[in-house]
Amino acid sequence: MSIQQAADDTILIREDTDGIATLTLNHPAKLNPLSEEMLAALQAQLDGIAGDPRVRAVILRGAGKAFCAGHDLRQMTAARQNPDSGAAYFRELFGTCTRVMTSIRNLPQPVIAQVHGIATAAGCQLVATCDMAVAADDTRFGVNGVNIGLFCSTPMVALSRNIGRKQAFEMLTTGAFIDANRACEVGLINRSAPQDRLQAETIALAQTVAAKLSSAVRIGKRAFYQQMEMGLDDAYAYTGEVMALNMADADTEEGIAAFLEKRDARWENP
Amino acid sequence: MSIQQAADDTILIREDTDGIATLTLNHPAKLNPLSEEMLAALQAQLDGIAGDPRVRAVILRGAGKAFCAGHDLRQMTAARQNPDSGAAYFRELFGTCTRVMTSIRNLPQPVIAQVHGIATAAGCQLVATCDMAVAADDTRFGVNGVNIGLFCSTPMVALSRNIGRKQAFEMLTTGAFIDANRACEVGLINRSAPQDRLQAETIALAQTVAAKLSSAVRIGKRAFYQQMEMGLDDAYAYTGEVMALNMADADTEEGIAAFLEKRDARWENP
Amino acid sequence: MSIQQAADDTILIREDTDGIATLTLNHPAKLNPLSEEMLAALQAQLDGIAGDPRVRAVILRGAGKAFCAGHDLRQMTAARQNPDSGAAYFRELFGTCTRVMTSIRNLPQPVIAQVHGIATAAGCQLVATCDMAVAADDTRFGVNGVNIGLFCSTPMVALSRNIGRKQAFEMLTTGAFIDANRACEVGLINRSAPQDRLQAETIALAQTVAAKLSSAVRIGKRAFYQQMEMGLDDAYAYTGEVMALNMADADTEEGIAAFLEKRDARWENP
Repeated sequence: MSIQQAADDTILIREDTDGIATLTLNHPAKLNPLSEEMLAALQAQLDGIAGDPRVRAVILRGAGKAFCAGHDLRQMTAARQNPDSGAAYFRELFGTCTRVMTSIRNLPQPVIAQVHGIATAAGCQLVATCDMAVAADDTRFGVNGVNIGLFCSTPMVALSRNIGRKQAFEMLTTGAFIDANRACEVGLINRSAPQDRLQAETIALAQTVAAKLSSAVRIGKRAFYQQMEMGLDDAYAYTGEVMALNMADADTEEGIAAFLEKRDARWENP
Repeated sequence: MSIQQAADDTILIREDTDGIATLTLNHPAKLNPLSEEMLAALQAQLDGIAGDPRVRAVILRGAGKAFCAGHDLRQMTAARQNPDSGAAYFRELFGTCTRVMTSIRNLPQPVIAQVHGIATAAGCQLVATCDMAVAADDTRFGVNGVNIGLFCSTPMVALSRNIGRKQAFEMLTTGAFIDANRACEVGLINRSAPQDRLQAETIALAQTVAAKLSSAVRIGKRAFYQQMEMGLDDAYAYTGEVMALNMADADTEEGIAAFLEKRDARWENP
Repeated sequence: MSIQQAADDTILIREDTDGIATLTLNHPAKLNPLSEEMLAALQAQLDGIAGDPRVRAVILRGAGKAFCAGHDLRQMTAARQNPDSGAAYFRELFGTCTRVMTSIRNLPQPVIAQVHGIATAAGCQLVATCDMAVAADDTRFGVNGVNIGLFCSTPMVALSRNIGRKQAFEMLTTGAFIDANRACEVGLINRSAPQDRLQAETIALAQTVAAKLSSAVRIGKRAFYQQMEMGLDDAYAYTGEVMALNMADADTEEGIAAFLEKRDARWENP
């Protein structure tokens, strides 16, 4: 089975249902590469979603046989014809890609990767960057740029913050693939599912998150990544302030009251 | 089975046996919440244990059906009647809670959580904060504040330093529980045991640590958390000094001599 | 089975085959301790390999029954006869050991530990320090200095950057051993193998890495450890530059071209 290709011929398709925005990388003939156009489309959609209060969770997936096979090597090779042999282009490209990755981290809403087929190089980086990931059982993950002499240096930033050092080093220097079961074991994804259950499992996870009080999830996602980069004492000083502010939210007051009164919460801005 | 409730009606019971201090959270009717009174009692006991050379290891457990269900929401809600709607109270409360958590980390003696029933929100934070943890097979762990609109921001500081990012993010934003087997897999606890073996397993672990040379364990615990927050080079410079000082200890000299002579060590200050 | 002891009576044996340098700790009667002489020999070999472009990967193993049992306690004890009771000696020894460990991290070539028998204290640190590790199924790993009153403070720097906090704390304070299967689960090693397959498995892994474009592997290994100590934004800024420079390599250009043309790469400096 493969995700049905959208009739739409745009490179990135956004579909919103019940507060869940699904972004589908839609260049299946080339395994959805992160070309200039794809990165620009992703950046535009992420920027739009960041300011859209109707969106409560995001699913990122790929059309066709694969999730994403990384950068567009043909496009990169063409840039070698530039007067500077592509030097400025490459620097700009990796900067553009980094902006997309950090926009996922900075997005107020949780982002879930729905992965199938292959997720390689910057495609594997996308999986590692998303807040959560669900994958089809037979998905293959790799940071295999080393096989063609281009070490996956930017993908490893995200990968090595998801899995152990020795396991990351092996993937990066051998170019070997791991399957979804192994990706679960090492912590790269949250869970795997049979391919015919992948979409349902991912949507169920997105719905679970989308059903929470939106302001609390936004506060929490932001604080999660902020405190990860602090020492323990700074992290506690910061998150203590975050929780005190969270308590001042009228909907949080209602949520706690409802819990104590054993009734459903009636949130003003759910 | 549940841990037999102590006849004592104090909120926190300390029992010392053979160098092991067991602290029992004792408010079972409310699932041992970290109320003002409980936090104050914990802080007082930790302060006392820190200066008590007879204590070689600490076990932290809960009376009744659960280990600990987090903060006392009724007490927090009552503070909303304050002129500032509780703002100062909440800030003070999270600061008080953080002092208890960092006191566990700073305590010279190792602290082992003996967990059963449920460990939720700040209760799960306690488990993550303890140096080691043993749990009954059917224990349920959760950082489920998000369900009532109060994201577990301070608990995540400890949680995200125990388990992988994606696994922590899922627990925090879905509010879902994990069982003891999964808690082992992700690294939140050291091991699980059938409920009727929980106390024996925890005591055995405490006895193992309590039998080591106390000065070495104290040196090591302190250095463990210090070096974790340093870059590699600083961590080595620091721990190199720690080991050189450790070598200067007369009991360490005796321990090494006894090992080389294949005999038991005769320590002056075991 | 044990690795056949080399006829050579030098304390550290280097054998080069097809771009793979194998370093064998060769003091089996004492379980290959990291004595002054062994550390000096390791440092000299690592310094030589660092500047030797023929070496593409390194295997580190031990002769006889064990990989390495840590420091040489008899030698350390002898230093207590010094006028300062060994204080300067111990400081120098741990500094020398740290230089060896950081030289493994800084070595341009990947280093793989081939582990059997036991790997304890600084021997376990060696395993944790190597970029990758393969171990015989019945290998026992421990940081058991606490048993003789000398906490494994420097080994824990490497160990706690490989495995989870609670798992590291337990090993360090109980002195308990873990087997190869558990070492895999917690992330201390990459894989285990039956003893009679250990060498073949390790060589196969080394050959896989040795077959990659050498410049890419060197760029990648260096960047791997550099970016691990940075915050996310700095790590991306740094690795973006690394990838842009990697793209400027003529062999990388050829590697990408060959991939797009579905042919084997013809590298000038493979």
